[in-house]
Amino acid sequence: MPQPVLVRGTGLLGTSIGLGLRAAGAEVLLADPSPSAQAVAEDIGAGRAVDPEDASPAPGLVVVAAPPDVTADVVVDSLRRWPAALVLDIASIKGRILEQVRDAAARGVVSDDDVSRYLPTHPMAGSERSGPVAARGTLFTASPWVLCPSPDTRPEAVAAGEAVARALQATVHRMDVAAHDASVALISHLPQIVASLVAARLQGTPDASLALAGNGLRDTTRIAGSDPQLWVQILAGNAEHIVPALHGLRADVERLIATLEAPTAPGARLDVARLMAEGNAGRARIPGKHGAPPQAFALVTVIVDDTPGQLAALFEEIGRAGVNVEDMRLDHASGYRVGMVDVSVLPGRRDELVSALTDAGWKVV
Amino acid sequence: MPQPVLVRGTGLLGTSIGLGLRAAGAEVLLADPSPSAQAVAEDIGAGRAVDPEDASPAPGLVVVAAPPDVTADVVVDSLRRWPAALVLDIASIKGRILEQVRDAAARGVVSDDDVSRYLPTHPMAGSERSGPVAARGTLFTASPWVLCPSPDTRPEAVAAGEAVARALQATVHRMDVAAHDASVALISHLPQIVASLVAARLQGTPDASLALAGNGLRDTTRIAGSDPQLWVQILAGNAEHIVPALHGLRADVERLIATLEAPTAPGARLDVARLMAEGNAGRARIPGKHGAPPQAFALVTVIVDDTPGQLAALFEEIGRAGVNVEDMRLDHASGYRVGMVDVSVLPGRRDELVSALTDAGWKVV
Repeated sequence: MPQPVLVRGTGLLGTSIGLGLRAAGAEVLLADPSPSAQAVAEDIGAGRAVDPEDASPAPGLVVVAAPPDVTADVVVDSLRRWPAALVLDIASIKGRILEQVRDAAARGVVSDDDVSRYLPTHPMAGSERSGPVAARGTLFTASPWVLCPSPDTRPEAVAAGEAVARALQATVHRMDVAAHDASVALISHLPQIVASLVAARLQGTPDASLALAGNGLRDTTRIAGSDPQLWVQILAGNAEHIVPALHGLRADVERLIATLEAPTAPGARLDVARLMAEGNAGRARIPGKHGAPPQAFALVTVIVDDTPGQLAALFEEIGRAGVNVEDMRLDHASGYRVGMVDVSVLPGRRDELVSALTDAGWKVV
Repeated sequence: MPQPVLVRGTGLLGTSIGLGLRAAGAEVLLADPSPSAQAVAEDIGAGRAVDPEDASPAPGLVVVAAPPDVTADVVVDSLRRWPAALVLDIASIKGRILEQVRDAAARGVVSDDDVSRYLPTHPMAGSERSGPVAARGTLFTASPWVLCPSPDTRPEAVAAGEAVARALQATVHRMDVAAHDASVALISHLPQIVASLVAARLQGTPDASLALAGNGLRDTTRIAGSDPQLWVQILAGNAEHIVPALHGLRADVERLIATLEAPTAPGARLDVARLMAEGNAGRARIPGKHGAPPQAFALVTVIVDDTPGQLAALFEEIGRAGVNVEDMRLDHASGYRVGMVDVSVLPGRRDELVSALTDAGWKVV
């Protein structure tokens, strides 16, 4: 990968990229409009802080990790400032930013040749925390990193994007900006919106009602804790693809309201059943772990005391049985100091594991 | 608790109640319109199969575990058939069923005194699987069980409901049928609906898009795999409380569409930010583990190989450090044979655990 790498923007993602690239042996420079964010990123070892007015040596690669709203400006500024550098950005919306960069070329701020040095990318990783303090070099490990070259993107820029993604142990995906934006509208932005909308309806709910909440509600609303300021930029920046999805959602909600307001009308029940069945079908299409086709794992549920050491002992036993845990979850519940651990294993290994655990005195339910 | 207990309906829930009550020492009789379901339930030890036309000895307590649509009929039949028995049902909607039972009294099919022997209840437990084969006596352990007595419910019926819930290790909650139905509309039915609607939109999505799916999508749509036939009955049966929630959801979706269609209008961004912030606020109100107030646990993320024994070794180490795991999750990712385990601990124990794991050679990120 061309070096040094200048990371512009030292929030959670930029700082994590700096840490990861340094761990992979790259020379990393850091710049952020906030002197304190830049200093923190340098202090935790993400690279050497520089003034972009005077970055020396000149970067071979610029990674723009600025908020979506200002990403295009920083990309254009980087293309102008370092005429030999390749430039990539990592914002979670792509079409709007590419359009803004091309507009700058149309206005003569940069040349079309300059734009060919720019690669739009999107690493699909994040955290519920933000800022350089939460950064970690392994943030992107095993996550998808989407590269969105257009026909006029230089091959060196694509190669640099691949090199960065691979150095950070991400999985490389390729699609054009429109396909990317349409994809994230459905698999990321719509889920975020409905999680927030469902959670918003809980504001006035009595405590006694919320005390009945189970994992269904917790799972459905988990991402509703996300940063409103960031999401304003993302939703506004991908409105073109989100609005049609929201029209579809509204139509479904309206259909359901009409049906539930006249539940004895002919076909009403069939209509609801069809809606739920469509949900079954869509859910079944989400790929499983490691990008494998969706697979029905077998579930083994074990009751454990909620004390230190219990999970250790359980997983030790599972390890001894030689069975790999494909997924696990600790089941929460109100009012009891016990938990239930749901362990997913390959269906062919289930019975074996149940016997091993039962023989060892575990309560398998 | 009055005995024998007759369980009418031997699906997942009825059979689980039979298993659990027998484990607690009760005499259990089983009846189901499906001879094969009834035979399976008996075979796995949930109780003794009987013909309700000729149940002997007469039950002291009847637990109606029929589908929501026929629950009221079975309650009324039970009140008539066994004039000394207490009767409770376990359907997930309550107001509609109580109304149907009272209608039967108004028509003279049963007396008001008969109705006083009936207690509406709702154990908030379930499984993604169904049928007697999936039953387990511990299905209700540590889950809420809502009792919904009205002023004219006999104290003995309430006591019997409590005895059943406690024998099955559930946590007893009390509220009237309207409060119950309003609660579950928001904390259970609305999440189910949006999970299904979001999942339904994935039906036509290209595989390449779905390959980018992360835990956000998986969590938000997890419950979309639920049984359409059951949910038709639940949604139709609680339409009175669900429809207003859906009107609110539709209004929010419309507001968002209007905003995203004119993202540069004055106040547009503030409007989106407000919607997301309302989601933050609602999310923060969901109680944590063991019904405790929502608590921000500290997260420790550890990279593990995806092989048997790794989780065992990790949890053994955590146990050695004497730190209790409050929550955990295995982070899925595409294309890599490693996983990340997110372990939640009390904030005051975080640093200690990180040092202990790092010292022992774990990759804490």
